[in-house]
Amino acid sequence: MSARSLDSKVLSTAIRAGDRATLARAITLVESTRADHRQTAHRLVQELLPSTGKAIRLGITGAPGAGKSTTIDALGSYLTGQGHKVAVLAVDPSSSRTGGSILGDKTRMARLAIDANAFIRPSPSSGTLGGVAAKTRETMLLCEAAGYDVVIVETVGVGQSETAVADMTDFFLVLMVAGTGDELQGIKKGIVELADMIAVNKADGDNIARANIAAADLRSALHILSPRSPTWTVPAITYSALTGGGIDTLWNHVTDYRNKMTASGEFAARRREQQVKWMWTMLEERLTARLRSDPAVRAKLRQAESAVAAGALSPTLAVEEIAGLLGL
Amino acid sequence: MSARSLDSKVLSTAIRAGDRATLARAITLVESTRADHRQTAHRLVQELLPSTGKAIRLGITGAPGAGKSTTIDALGSYLTGQGHKVAVLAVDPSSSRTGGSILGDKTRMARLAIDANAFIRPSPSSGTLGGVAAKTRETMLLCEAAGYDVVIVETVGVGQSETAVADMTDFFLVLMVAGTGDELQGIKKGIVELADMIAVNKADGDNIARANIAAADLRSALHILSPRSPTWTVPAITYSALTGGGIDTLWNHVTDYRNKMTASGEFAARRREQQVKWMWTMLEERLTARLRSDPAVRAKLRQAESAVAAGALSPTLAVEEIAGLLGL
Repeated sequence: MSARSLDSKVLSTAIRAGDRATLARAITLVESTRADHRQTAHRLVQELLPSTGKAIRLGITGAPGAGKSTTIDALGSYLTGQGHKVAVLAVDPSSSRTGGSILGDKTRMARLAIDANAFIRPSPSSGTLGGVAAKTRETMLLCEAAGYDVVIVETVGVGQSETAVADMTDFFLVLMVAGTGDELQGIKKGIVELADMIAVNKADGDNIARANIAAADLRSALHILSPRSPTWTVPAITYSALTGGGIDTLWNHVTDYRNKMTASGEFAARRREQQVKWMWTMLEERLTARLRSDPAVRAKLRQAESAVAAGALSPTLAVEEIAGLLGL
Repeated sequence: MSARSLDSKVLSTAIRAGDRATLARAITLVESTRADHRQTAHRLVQELLPSTGKAIRLGITGAPGAGKSTTIDALGSYLTGQGHKVAVLAVDPSSSRTGGSILGDKTRMARLAIDANAFIRPSPSSGTLGGVAAKTRETMLLCEAAGYDVVIVETVGVGQSETAVADMTDFFLVLMVAGTGDELQGIKKGIVELADMIAVNKADGDNIARANIAAADLRSALHILSPRSPTWTVPAITYSALTGGGIDTLWNHVTDYRNKMTASGEFAARRREQQVKWMWTMLEERLTARLRSDPAVRAKLRQAESAVAAGALSPTLAVEEIAGLLGL
């Protein structure tokens, strides 16, 4: 990038004016691992901070085959039709830039890809889940500063990626389909706890009755769990990404959630908690990385880990020994 | 304590011989915050390590009113009747020694309290959940070395204490009661993911039908969640701590679980993971404590936390600034 393009003031002005090319370039800066790029990115995000936070942040997950891309295409097009500006981001720690994921994402979202009020950006491809999530968070802030008032963060559900996405969004939507038999596909363990809504896709044609049964089953299951918030009962609904039927109802639940949680103060509180948690997570990762960067400590950690796993060394003693090496 | 009683070799020999008074004294040592006590405790746990790991470790939680104490009293007595030696420990970060919790626990478990083959120890009362859990873990190891082949760890469910107990036990049992209406009390969010079995208490007298309905509701809810292990389907059963009905079935599920998970290799794998995770948790706590011990860093952390919560400082920049202070 040129010296001029790396000036954070120039970038932030163009982003606030909604310039897509600059937004894309700034995201590349945020994703870069070069020290000078990181520095500029930090300054840029800090400068744009007062222009962020106005979007509704929607996390979406679903098993392969649940129809995430077609759902985002249908929902995103519905929203731009209502006058919204929609950004679509992704957290996929397994993605690889060389795999042509940009083309992939744009192909999968045929309508949004050519929509002037939509901005699609694939997952950053570098490194750990923590790293990918941190970059997606900052990209989300850039998109908000550029005037996108709905940010959708999609995740494929590798490892702990759902938790990472739930921790950066206001509303976490879990997509499902009714199984080929009568049976509902199982919800991945831990996900039901994160869901603010569960939506059963493919409620169209011969499949409507099956989808309705699945949603009813989900409602009775959800009924048994204590709600995370006294203000919000997690709905289980049906819709069809194919026909678009139920997409409006789906979105109404999201805005209903925002209104109720804003009125109760929980909306702002959840964001504050997310931000502080994000800071602590990054700090812990930094400390752990520092730990592993010292060859003597790294060797000791490896040895301690296997001795502890084998039951030959007490974890407490292992920690004492490592702390001793670190001078703690 | 006398110099002799603090010799870890003397202590470990007496513990291996099953001496209850020495076991109790050694636990006090483990719970002590005095540096020399900690040193001896570390040595002692390490020396006893080869004699540990043979017990089945059972975690139990349940909402207030679910009948945890009466259940542990009934189950423990059943087990000593079958020739087992049973230790009952607790993780309760809210407990206070001065509240007379020893007396409290023993009163609540009338039969076990006078059973020669049972050993009841209340929760350590000092400090954070992490600290309390670490001490209970080491106490569990001491009890195993003393020949207790069933260790029950109870938790009241304050904060994240259920996760801490699930992370130190082989089998996590969630107790419930059918509500006063037809309705089941909600399961606290996050707990259903930890459960290896859910047991509905008070299936006695007029309440049997209600308990059966509750268990059936739970079974359909559990059905919708993907199982954590391909080897184990989480059962939902009924029993009565009052009459003892179903306590044998409850225990049969625990042994069935142990047999199946041992055969698949998952039993040992879970323990290895728990031990390594324990080491990392303690190490992270140590690092964070070190962080907070420097007054300049502590002040900076406090300031950064509120600026981040208020949305005035980007978490990434906050981490940069703190890392700079730490020379990372």
